[in-house]
Amino acid sequence: MGKMHAITMQDGKINLDDIDIPQPGPGQVLVKSLACGICGSDLHLTRHTSDVFSVYKQLGLMDPGVEGTPGIMLGHEFAAEVVSYGPQTEGKFPPGTRVTGVPVLQSAGGAGVGVTPGLYGAYSEYFIADEALLIPIPEHVSSHAAATCEPLAVGLHSVNRSAVGVDDIALVAGCGTIGLAVMAALSIRGVKTILASDPQASKHAIAKAFGATRVVDPTQEDEVALAAELAGDNNVVIYECVGVYKLINGFIERAPKRAKLIITGVHTTPFEVNFAIPMVKEMDIRFSYYYTPEEFAECLQYIADGKVNWRAMCTGKVGIDGVSGAFDTLLKPNDHIKVIIEPWRKGALTAYSDEGG
Amino acid sequence: MGKMHAITMQDGKINLDDIDIPQPGPGQVLVKSLACGICGSDLHLTRHTSDVFSVYKQLGLMDPGVEGTPGIMLGHEFAAEVVSYGPQTEGKFPPGTRVTGVPVLQSAGGAGVGVTPGLYGAYSEYFIADEALLIPIPEHVSSHAAATCEPLAVGLHSVNRSAVGVDDIALVAGCGTIGLAVMAALSIRGVKTILASDPQASKHAIAKAFGATRVVDPTQEDEVALAAELAGDNNVVIYECVGVYKLINGFIERAPKRAKLIITGVHTTPFEVNFAIPMVKEMDIRFSYYYTPEEFAECLQYIADGKVNWRAMCTGKVGIDGVSGAFDTLLKPNDHIKVIIEPWRKGALTAYSDEGG
Repeated sequence: MGKMHAITMQDGKINLDDIDIPQPGPGQVLVKSLACGICGSDLHLTRHTSDVFSVYKQLGLMDPGVEGTPGIMLGHEFAAEVVSYGPQTEGKFPPGTRVTGVPVLQSAGGAGVGVTPGLYGAYSEYFIADEALLIPIPEHVSSHAAATCEPLAVGLHSVNRSAVGVDDIALVAGCGTIGLAVMAALSIRGVKTILASDPQASKHAIAKAFGATRVVDPTQEDEVALAAELAGDNNVVIYECVGVYKLINGFIERAPKRAKLIITGVHTTPFEVNFAIPMVKEMDIRFSYYYTPEEFAECLQYIADGKVNWRAMCTGKVGIDGVSGAFDTLLKPNDHIKVIIEPWRKGALTAYSDEGG
Repeated sequence: MGKMHAITMQDGKINLDDIDIPQPGPGQVLVKSLACGICGSDLHLTRHTSDVFSVYKQLGLMDPGVEGTPGIMLGHEFAAEVVSYGPQTEGKFPPGTRVTGVPVLQSAGGAGVGVTPGLYGAYSEYFIADEALLIPIPEHVSSHAAATCEPLAVGLHSVNRSAVGVDDIALVAGCGTIGLAVMAALSIRGVKTILASDPQASKHAIAKAFGATRVVDPTQEDEVALAAELAGDNNVVIYECVGVYKLINGFIERAPKRAKLIITGVHTTPFEVNFAIPMVKEMDIRFSYYYTPEEFAECLQYIADGKVNWRAMCTGKVGIDGVSGAFDTLLKPNDHIKVIIEPWRKGALTAYSDEGG
C-alpha cells in the first residue's frame, strides 16, 4: 500500500511523518480518519508522558521492560470512513461508510486506539479499528458531531457512576469538554440543579448551552459551599472535571456530609490526603475512567436526536500539518474547548466552523 | 447528689477520679452504666489525641479556639440502667429499665457521648443520655450483649454503605471488633463469599463464628489477589477494618477493576496517594463512619434473635479501677478483641465470662 501522513507524540513533541498505510489484521478494518478531537488526556499525556507510562507499568497495562518513552500515535475521538477489511471480518459496512466507535482494539488484547504505543491513532490519515466495535454514523450526523461522541460517553459514564438523583445538587467543576459532557448527561437524566464552575468567563455561556442551571466563577465564590447551601437534605455530587490534582483536597475539605466526589479528570501525580476528612463526612470518592459500548451508542443517539448541543463545544479545527502548532496553543492558557483535527487536509488552527464536517 | 467514680482520658493517660454525679438537663436521662465496650477508636484517640482534635477543629466539630488537649470521658458502647429524668422528658422507661442507644446527645447539639470533651461517658459509673435515643434492652439480652450493639451497628452501616451484592466477593481486612461486625452483617445479608484477613491466628476461628467463609493470613497469602481470583465477573468489596493508614495504598494497588474499598477504620494521618491507580480501575472509595438509629435497632434485634454470635468477640472484662491497666495491655500487641468494662465494680482485666453480664 501507499504512504500516509501520520502524527506521533514522543517526549512531549508532536511529529508529522510519512509512513506506510497499515494493513488490517484479523477482525480489523482499515479506516480513513475524517475527524478526530484533541482530548485533554492527549494533552496530559504530552505534558506527563513518563508519569503516565510509570502508572501504566505499575498497573500491568504496559510491559515494565519498556525503556524510555515510546512514541504514541494519538487520536481516539474519531469519525472515520471504512476503507478495507482484514481477514476474519464480516464486511458489515461497505467501503465509504462513515463510522465511529469505542477506541479499543479487542483484537490487540484490549489496547487503546490513540493511547497504547504501537497502535495507530485517529490524528493520522488512516488507522486500524475493530470491526466488532464500529457503529455507523447516521446520515444527518456530521463527522465533527460524531467525533464528539467519545467525550460525551465519558461524561455519561461519569453521571451513571455517580448514581445521581434528580433532586441532588450536581456541581460540575471544570467547563472543558468533559465537564460539558457531564452537564449534557445530567440534563438528559433530568437533574434539576446543575452548577457549573470555571474561572474562565468565556466558558460560562457554553456551560449553559450544555444544561448548566447556574454558572460560578470559583475564584469569586465558593462553589462547594453554594452547592451545600442549595442541597438542604439532598446530596451534593461533585464531578471533578478539571484534572488538576491540587484541587482535590479542596473539594474534599469543603464538601458537605454524604457528598459524592466523582473523579473524572486524569491525575497522575501523587499527593497527600487525610482520610479522616472524607471519613467524618461519609463521602464517596468514585473514579470514572472509561465507558461501555452501550453508553457510547446512547450518546450517538443523543447527538442524532438533537439532544446535545455538541456544536457549542467545538472551538477550533485544524489540518494535519497544523496539529503541532495547535498543541503549542493548547498547552498554554487558552480559551479552546474542543479542537477537531481533519487529518485529510492541511491547514493551521482556525476558529471552528461546520464546513467540511 | 453524691459522688461517682469516673474515667477521663487526657494526653494519652487514663485517670480515675471521684466527681459529682451529673444532673440530667432538658430531654436528658441520668443512667447508670452496666457495661461498656472499649472501642478501637478509644484506643486510637488515646494514641493520637492531638491529630484527632486537629481534624475535629478543621471540620468544625470542635471550637478551634480550644487549646491543648482537653480530657475526654470515654465510653460510647453502652448498656445502662435508667436512674432519673431531667426536665422536658416523658419518663418513657421506669427507673431500673435497662437501655442502650445511639451515643449522641441531640440535646447538646449532636455531640458524641464518650467522644466529645465536656460530656460524660459510659466508662464512668453514671452518664447522661438523651431520652429520645434510648431503646430498652429485651429481657433475655444480657447487658454485655447489648454493649456490643454499637460496634455491630458500625459493621451493618459499612455493609449498607457498600451496596454489596450477594455474589460479590467480600474481603474483610482485619478481624477486630469492626471486622467481625462487618462479617456478621454480610452473613445476615446473604453474601456468599466472605474472606476474612488477619495476621493473628487467634482471630481466625472467631472470624468463622461471625460468618467468614474463609480466613487468610495476609502475611502468608495475598488476600486481595485471592479475592480477585474468586470474583470472576463479580465485584470485589474490600472492607478496611484495620485502621492502619499504611495499608490503604496496598489495597488500592492490588484491587481488581471495579473494586469498592470501604474505609471503616479510623485514620487521621495524612498519606500520599496516586489517584491514577484507582482511576484506571474505576474504584469506589467509600467512607463509613456512623450509623442510623434504625441500623442500631436492627442490630439489637439481631442480637435478640440470636443471629449474631456476639459472645465470640468478647475476650475480656474489667472493673473501673482496672481500666488504666487494660489500656496498657490493649495499647501493646495483644490478642484481645472486645473488652467489656463494668464500671459498677472493681477488678483488673480478666478473661471474659458471661457472669454478671
